Amino acid sequence: MIDIALMGHGVVGSGVAEIIINHAERINNSCKNNINIKYILDLRKFDNLPYSDKFITDFSAILEDNDIRIVVEVMGGVNPAYEFVRSCLLAGKSVVTSNKELVAAKGAELIKIARDKNVNFLFEASVGGGIPVLRPLVQCLAANEIKEINGILNGTTNYILNKMIVDNMDFETALKLAQENGYAEKNPAADIEGHDACRKVCILAALAFGKHVYPEQVSTEGITNISLDDIDYADKFNYVIKLIGSAKKLPDGKISASVRPTLVRRDNILSNVDGVFNAIMVNGDQTGDVLFYGKGAGKEATASAVVADIIDCAKHLDSRKYLYWDDGNDDYVDNNSTLKSKLYICVKSNDVSDVKSQIKKLFGDDIFIITNEFKNELAFLTNTDFEDSLYTKANQLKSITDIKILHTL
Amino acid sequence: MIDIALMGHGVVGSGVAEIIINHAERINNSCKNNINIKYILDLRKFDNLPYSDKFITDFSAILEDNDIRIVVEVMGGVNPAYEFVRSCLLAGKSVVTSNKELVAAKGAELIKIARDKNVNFLFEASVGGGIPVLRPLVQCLAANEIKEINGILNGTTNYILNKMIVDNMDFETALKLAQENGYAEKNPAADIEGHDACRKVCILAALAFGKHVYPEQVSTEGITNISLDDIDYADKFNYVIKLIGSAKKLPDGKISASVRPTLVRRDNILSNVDGVFNAIMVNGDQTGDVLFYGKGAGKEATASAVVADIIDCAKHLDSRKYLYWDDGNDDYVDNNSTLKSKLYICVKSNDVSDVKSQIKKLFGDDIFIITNEFKNELAFLTNTDFEDSLYTKANQLKSITDIKILHTL
Repeated sequence: MIDIALMGHGVVGSGVAEIIINHAERINNSCKNNINIKYILDLRKFDNLPYSDKFITDFSAILEDNDIRIVVEVMGGVNPAYEFVRSCLLAGKSVVTSNKELVAAKGAELIKIARDKNVNFLFEASVGGGIPVLRPLVQCLAANEIKEINGILNGTTNYILNKMIVDNMDFETALKLAQENGYAEKNPAADIEGHDACRKVCILAALAFGKHVYPEQVSTEGITNISLDDIDYADKFNYVIKLIGSAKKLPDGKISASVRPTLVRRDNILSNVDGVFNAIMVNGDQTGDVLFYGKGAGKEATASAVVADIIDCAKHLDSRKYLYWDDGNDDYVDNNSTLKSKLYICVKSNDVSDVKSQIKKLFGDDIFIITNEFKNELAFLTNTDFEDSLYTKANQLKSITDIKILHTL
Repeated sequence: MIDIALMGHGVVGSGVAEIIINHAERINNSCKNNINIKYILDLRKFDNLPYSDKFITDFSAILEDNDIRIVVEVMGGVNPAYEFVRSCLLAGKSVVTSNKELVAAKGAELIKIARDKNVNFLFEASVGGGIPVLRPLVQCLAANEIKEINGILNGTTNYILNKMIVDNMDFETALKLAQENGYAEKNPAADIEGHDACRKVCILAALAFGKHVYPEQVSTEGITNISLDDIDYADKFNYVIKLIGSAKKLPDGKISASVRPTLVRRDNILSNVDGVFNAIMVNGDQTGDVLFYGKGAGKEATASAVVADIIDCAKHLDSRKYLYWDDGNDDYVDNNSTLKSKLYICVKSNDVSDVKSQIKKLFGDDIFIITNEFKNELAFLTNTDFEDSLYTKANQLKSITDIKILHTL
C-alpha cells in the first residue's frame, strides 16, 4: 500500500479523491499497488463525505509522516503551495501538482530539489488539463529538436472568441454567458487578460527548450481589445481570431515567447478548435507538426491527469522521471527579434481614402484592403516581411486616429 | 556505450541510422549514454555510406552477440521479422519495431515473451508514424476507462479522399496523383482496401481494451467504392467522407472493431484532418475526447518515433515498460452488436419517385432526401436508431437496383 496526501479539496482535489476512491480497482491494477489517501489538507470543513475522517488542517502532519511518499498539491496559487511543495520535496517525498502558477514561477527550483533528492515532481495537469502533452513532448519527441510550439491554452477565451465568431455575439455578452455556464470565473482577469495561458507557455517553453521562462518574460496580451469587426475582417481574409500562446527557438539560441490574439488561417487545424477545447501544436525537426487536443480544464479531465501522475509516481517510487530544465536568465527571452511575419493591421481615420493610398504606397499595391466606411476603418494583411520593417511602415501612417496590429499564424 | 542492431535498411531503417548518427549528441544526452549502431542487417549492398562497414547479412551475428542489448526491427512484413524478433526477445534483448503488420499479427505473444524475459518490446512507430499516441494512451490515460477510439489511420486514403472532396477529382485520378507524389505504393491495395488501417485498429484496440484483436476480426472496407456523388451528397448533409478506423467497448465487455468509409460531421475536428495527416481521437470516461494529430508516415517522422523508443529502451535496460495485453479469443470482437447509429444510404432505382415515398414511409416523413434524377439516385441520412433495425428497413426497399450504406460519426 502507498499512502498519499492531498493538499487542497477544491474542484480538482475533490475530483482526484473521487477518481481514486471510485475507480480503486482500475488504479491499483495500473500501479500494481494500492493507493491510499491518508490525509486531505484543507482549512474548510467537509463533514458529509464518505472520507470526511481524512481531513486535516495542519500541514506538518503530512510533512512529518514518513509513510507519505507522494503528496498531491491541488491548492493553486504560489503561496503557501510553494513552501509546502518545497518542504515535501526536501523531505524526500514525490510531489504531483496541477498548479501552473507554481510551476511557471518556481519550476526550475523545485525540479532541481526533486533531482537532488531523487524523487519525482510531476505536473502533467498544469498544461492542457486532461490532454497528455508534457509527457509526450519530453518522451516521445526525444529524438526531435523542437522548433516551435503554438497553442490554444485557455478554454475560457476560446469559448468567448468562438461565440463571437460563430454567433456574432459581442465580447461582453459572450463573457457573461461563459460565466453563467461555469467556463469563466467571477473575476475573469486571469483568463481574458492572458495570464493563465502565459503560465502554460512558460511550462511548455521550459520543457521544450530546456531553460526556465518566467511569466514576466512572456509578451502577454488578452482578448479584451478584439471587436466583432476584427472577427469579421479576419473572416473575409479566411482567418479566425484565436488566443495563441507561442514559443519559438531563435537562430541565436534565445527564444521568443508570447500570448496574443492571433489570426489563424482556416486551413490550419488550430482554427477548428472550438468551444472550451485546448490544442497544442508542436513542431519538431523530424516529426513536423504534431497536435494534442482535448478539454483543457474541467474537474474530471484535470483530475484524471493528476491521477495519471500519481500512478506514474507510484510505479517509480525509487527512480526519477525525465522532466528537467535549467534555471532561466534575464536575456534568454527576446521578443523583439527580427522574425518574419504577416501582420493584420486595422486603422481608424477620418480620411479613409487618403490612408488607403498611404497603405498601398507603404505595403504594396497588391494589398487587399477592407474598407468599412461606416466605422471609418480600414483592415488589411501585410505581405510576409521582417516584423520590425512592418512596424516601421505602420508607424509611418499619417492622419490615423487608432491602430491595432495582430499577428497571424 | 550501448550497442544496438538495425534489422532493415529501407526507408525507415535508413532514417533511423541517419538520426542516430547525425544527431548523436542530442540522443546521447537524452539517453545519458552513447548509442552505437554495431550492425545493420540487410541483404542488399550499401557501399557508399559513411557507415557501410556495419552491414551484415547473417542474423545469427546479432542474435549471438551478447553486447547487443537493443534490436531495432524495421524490415516490415511478418516473415522473417517474426522469427527474428521472437529469437531476440527470447535471448534477452529488447526490441523496438515500426512493423504494424507484425504487432497486429503476433503482438500478444511477443509482449508475453518480453515480459517473461524482463526486456522491452516497444512499437510506438507502428501507429500514427511520428505522432506520439500509444505511450500517452497507456500512460497518461491510466486513470481513464477508454470507451471508444476513432481515427484517421492511413495517410494515403486520406490524401485521396481529400483530393476528391476539395478538388472534385475522381478516385482513379487522385490515386494516380498520390502515387506520383510518393504517397501511395505502386500496388496500393494495402492502403486503399483498408488493411493498413486495420492493423493499426488492432494495435490501438489491444492497448486500450487489454486483449489482442486480430486483423481478420476487424470488419474492414476500403475506399474504392466511394464516388464523387457520395462526396457531394455528404457535403450537402454537412459531412465529409473519411476512412475511419474504430474500436468501441460494448456493454457486454466485448468490443466492436472496424475500418470503413464514414461520414464525419463538419463540426467534428476529425473532419478537418486533411492531406496525408493522421489523427486519433480517444474517448475516456474522465477526459472526454482527446485527439493526437500529425504526419502518420514519412521517413523522418516514423524514424523519430523509432528513435524515441530506442532512447526509452536505453534508459530502461533493466526494467520493463508498461505495454501489455492478453491474448485474444474468437468471440471477443462482435461487429453485429446492436449499437445505435445514424446511417447514410444511397440507392439507385429506375423509379425514383416510388422509392422516395417508400423511404419516407420506412424511415420517417422528416427525412431529407437528395434526389439525383440524372443518375437515378437518392441519398439520405437516417435518424439515429439501432443498426439492425435500420438495416432491416433498408432491406425492405423495393424496386432498387443498387444500395450503398455508410456509417456516420
